[in-house]
Amino acid sequence: MNDLMPLNPDQYSLVMNVLNLSIALFGGFSLLFILLRRTVAHNYSISVAMMAAVTAMAAYHYFRIYSNWLAAYQLQGGTYLPTGIPFNYAYRYADWLGTVPLLLTAIMLVLDIGRQKSASLVSRMVVSAALMIGLGYVGEVQRVDMLARGLYGLAATVPFLYILYVLWRELGQVLLFESGRVRELFSTLRLVLLGSWVFYPVVYALPIFGLSHAGLIPLIQVCNSTADLLAKVGVGLLLYTIAREKTEEDLLAERDRSQVPVRIAAD
Amino acid sequence: MNDLMPLNPDQYSLVMNVLNLSIALFGGFSLLFILLRRTVAHNYSISVAMMAAVTAMAAYHYFRIYSNWLAAYQLQGGTYLPTGIPFNYAYRYADWLGTVPLLLTAIMLVLDIGRQKSASLVSRMVVSAALMIGLGYVGEVQRVDMLARGLYGLAATVPFLYILYVLWRELGQVLLFESGRVRELFSTLRLVLLGSWVFYPVVYALPIFGLSHAGLIPLIQVCNSTADLLAKVGVGLLLYTIAREKTEEDLLAERDRSQVPVRIAAD
Repeated sequence: MNDLMPLNPDQYSLVMNVLNLSIALFGGFSLLFILLRRTVAHNYSISVAMMAAVTAMAAYHYFRIYSNWLAAYQLQGGTYLPTGIPFNYAYRYADWLGTVPLLLTAIMLVLDIGRQKSASLVSRMVVSAALMIGLGYVGEVQRVDMLARGLYGLAATVPFLYILYVLWRELGQVLLFESGRVRELFSTLRLVLLGSWVFYPVVYALPIFGLSHAGLIPLIQVCNSTADLLAKVGVGLLLYTIAREKTEEDLLAERDRSQVPVRIAAD
Repeated sequence: MNDLMPLNPDQYSLVMNVLNLSIALFGGFSLLFILLRRTVAHNYSISVAMMAAVTAMAAYHYFRIYSNWLAAYQLQGGTYLPTGIPFNYAYRYADWLGTVPLLLTAIMLVLDIGRQKSASLVSRMVVSAALMIGLGYVGEVQRVDMLARGLYGLAATVPFLYILYVLWRELGQVLLFESGRVRELFSTLRLVLLGSWVFYPVVYALPIFGLSHAGLIPLIQVCNSTADLLAKVGVGLLLYTIAREKTEEDLLAERDRSQVPVRIAAD
């Protein structure tokens, strides 16, 4: 797994700085989600709390990746050379294994799905996410046998497609009961999630096509970090916006209901 | 206690990554339980708060175990060799001694047991859990005298069986007053707890059967970590679900009660 190559100072610092920025953003937004969770109605605050935990776990893992990056290289004569300490790819998989199921749960719980239905949806999504990441990890550690890497990658695509099916198809039906504004926000959220997830298989497939080049190491780290930021901070902010919108709508509906007897009495 | 053997990089990293994932999950879910504790009724929020403390203690202990693992090995010529720094098994026993009594208390307090009865149940469970783990620890440090290890293990089984008796028999009677949905969730919770606890005696018994093999070290760490995650995060999530369910039921009962006089007045 220790296939690091010498890097020039710009390449090395780019990765260091992107990892560091990610720690700050994940940590900062975790705090923000903690602080904002009570500015939405009770039901939706569960989703916001989950996003606080998701971003906190990501901040922790990025802290590990950042420290690992510093330990994996040393500057010698103007070039950053690998020290021999392995750069541990599994930190990212550990992060995804913990955060993706929670993220998907948060996305589903912000919608008004019946309790019975949501228990079924949540358990199917959690199992699919764990399968997708587990199979991806087994493929990721295949760094010689590219056929095996490809096959595990394909296998991981099955639960991935199932997750997309649930998000578009099953939640699409739930969305019919939501307001136009919520539907719009939720569609954007799904697209941001899908857009961020497109990075991962591309990065995963690079070694299969025999692509290994010093310049790819920073590219992979930047792509993975950007995708994580989109999927967690970006999706988290959209979830919060949806929670706010639904809180307002609930308050309006509540006010309408409580005004009914008043109107009758006035007749 | 320092019976570590040389490991290949995959074996070494597997343990490192599982320990690291455990830190993140325990820490992340501790935060989540803190944030979610007020989304359930007052009575049940005590159990959720206890699960936040249980997972926080586990995150701390896994941080220690992880650091210990890094210090206990060093990479030399492609193989991880023991450095001579002992790998401290007692971190796990310290974790259990602190968390298991609290976990069992959280489980009992989520049910509507009378205060008199629950004080008696809690104290019996706390003493049994402490006895079970204390006896297990005395047996664990027996790494030569396998007869003593076996006998202490057997002795620890007595409080273990007593805990099962209380969970199934005594709490079974309390459960008769709960709704079908709560009974179902609580049965799942008991099974997850029992399922996770089955790992521990198996791992404990390995040296008695003379099993010592480099491959067993990662297996033991992975099994113990999985069992801990199931018993704390898994049981914690089930406890939270039970607390939510009971909160909803209480609210419905409350609403029914408050509507009774209104209906009578309308007649």
